[in-house]
Amino acid sequence: MLGGAATYIALAASYFTPAKVVAVVGDDFAAEDYDLLARRGVDLRGLERVSGKTFFWSGVYSDDMNERTTLRTDLNVFAGFNPKLPEGYRSAPYLFLGNIQPALQKSVCAQMNGVRLVGGDTMNYWINDYRQELLDTLHEWDFLLINDSEARLLSGVYNIRRAAARILDMGPHTLIVKRGEYGAILFRRDCHFMVPGYLLEDVFDPTGAGDSFAGGFIGYLAARGVDPNDGNLDIAELRRAVIYGSVLGSFCCEKFGVDRFRTLTRAEIDGRFEEFRTCTAF
Amino acid sequence: MLGGAATYIALAASYFTPAKVVAVVGDDFAAEDYDLLARRGVDLRGLERVSGKTFFWSGVYSDDMNERTTLRTDLNVFAGFNPKLPEGYRSAPYLFLGNIQPALQKSVCAQMNGVRLVGGDTMNYWINDYRQELLDTLHEWDFLLINDSEARLLSGVYNIRRAAARILDMGPHTLIVKRGEYGAILFRRDCHFMVPGYLLEDVFDPTGAGDSFAGGFIGYLAARGVDPNDGNLDIAELRRAVIYGSVLGSFCCEKFGVDRFRTLTRAEIDGRFEEFRTCTAF
Repeated sequence: MLGGAATYIALAASYFTPAKVVAVVGDDFAAEDYDLLARRGVDLRGLERVSGKTFFWSGVYSDDMNERTTLRTDLNVFAGFNPKLPEGYRSAPYLFLGNIQPALQKSVCAQMNGVRLVGGDTMNYWINDYRQELLDTLHEWDFLLINDSEARLLSGVYNIRRAAARILDMGPHTLIVKRGEYGAILFRRDCHFMVPGYLLEDVFDPTGAGDSFAGGFIGYLAARGVDPNDGNLDIAELRRAVIYGSVLGSFCCEKFGVDRFRTLTRAEIDGRFEEFRTCTAF
Repeated sequence: MLGGAATYIALAASYFTPAKVVAVVGDDFAAEDYDLLARRGVDLRGLERVSGKTFFWSGVYSDDMNERTTLRTDLNVFAGFNPKLPEGYRSAPYLFLGNIQPALQKSVCAQMNGVRLVGGDTMNYWINDYRQELLDTLHEWDFLLINDSEARLLSGVYNIRRAAARILDMGPHTLIVKRGEYGAILFRRDCHFMVPGYLLEDVFDPTGAGDSFAGGFIGYLAARGVDPNDGNLDIAELRRAVIYGSVLGSFCCEKFGVDRFRTLTRAEIDGRFEEFRTCTAF
């Protein structure tokens, strides 16, 4: 079925702001998948279609949903992907770079004119085998959004607070560490903010939850016009962005794949945001 | 060194309210250990001394401190322990029953006159092999304080929200589920409250952290005179009690065994309570 980081990020962000996608698909990409994104107002001018098959991944989760084993990864048309931004994309003020080869993330960044806030994701493969390239790339970012095991791998430190301090020395002024069902932590040099995970009664499928978090996080910041360069970045907005990220990630887990996004409304999102407050305030 | 549930619970509670201990030690129990408790104002009339050796446990933690392996457990004088409350204890309004055979917890409860709030702890051994006895015992409690794996074992349900609903059918109106470094959740029928774990830069020794949580939790409630029977139990007080429990548990991990309690002050505790607010409010 439809999947992929760009899909989840764009769907989640679309509840806050018009999102533009840069991605590649093959000639097997379904019209109904295109339509789902288009109906959410996602700009698809940057969706490159080339001859061949779309990237394919399948995997199986452990009983507790905390671990997954990849069954199959077929890069297909993704193998030759070299993202080129349409002219109408270059002046966008907010940029999120999904998990891909760091040099490609850097090249996308270089195609932008005057981006206000940029951040992205990465994974163990790039951390281990493309370390210098990754460091050169994320040096330019405002924020890095990764999970706890990636933070440990990138920093070489087990303790997550110490790991965060090391990573904040690599360039980004903001680090968000996702902890799966246990929530997330936002780190900056002078403070951190923790949110527990939303307590779902059924975790149906965690695929895409991290990317949905990313979309909710940057979508909210974009909608609010947050600017880290204006000298008084509002930390309260970053905190709320982490909550919105958590909300979108939690909804994503409720159905298989992207299915929850077929019916999700902004009112449901705002309701769960308030639920987070009720469940954590003291 | 000095250890044991009663020790940690009493030390933690002593920062909020005068605590009374019911426990048994052998004739090898050190005067300096007795003195540490006495200096914290702990009432030790209920500390029975019998001929033989004090209970002994040793274990080793995994590198990430999340798992521990018992190296040795010698019950010693604990094997024949049958707690008898001194006359001056029976009218105490708050009772916390540490982890021990459920029938003994029940017998302590029966020796009390008009207790206002009672709760306790248990472990996998009693859940598996003394299930009916445990159910008969905790049926009378206001709250149960256990960790996530114990909640799953007791309820037979993996999902922690569903597990909590089952456990609240067993008698207690309040359930607190400890999640180690990931914090704790307070469950009641109509609401729940989540707190992430305090982010320590060094977890030196987690031994006793759960018991310190228990002491901080009930100690705070006792100091505030919380009464679940007066019809309008203040949920906000329960939330704050969970935070104070988390604070005491986090301090406990900072040094080996009970060592942190040798210097800990109420001002440090209140400072960390405020830190929890700063790190979680949005």
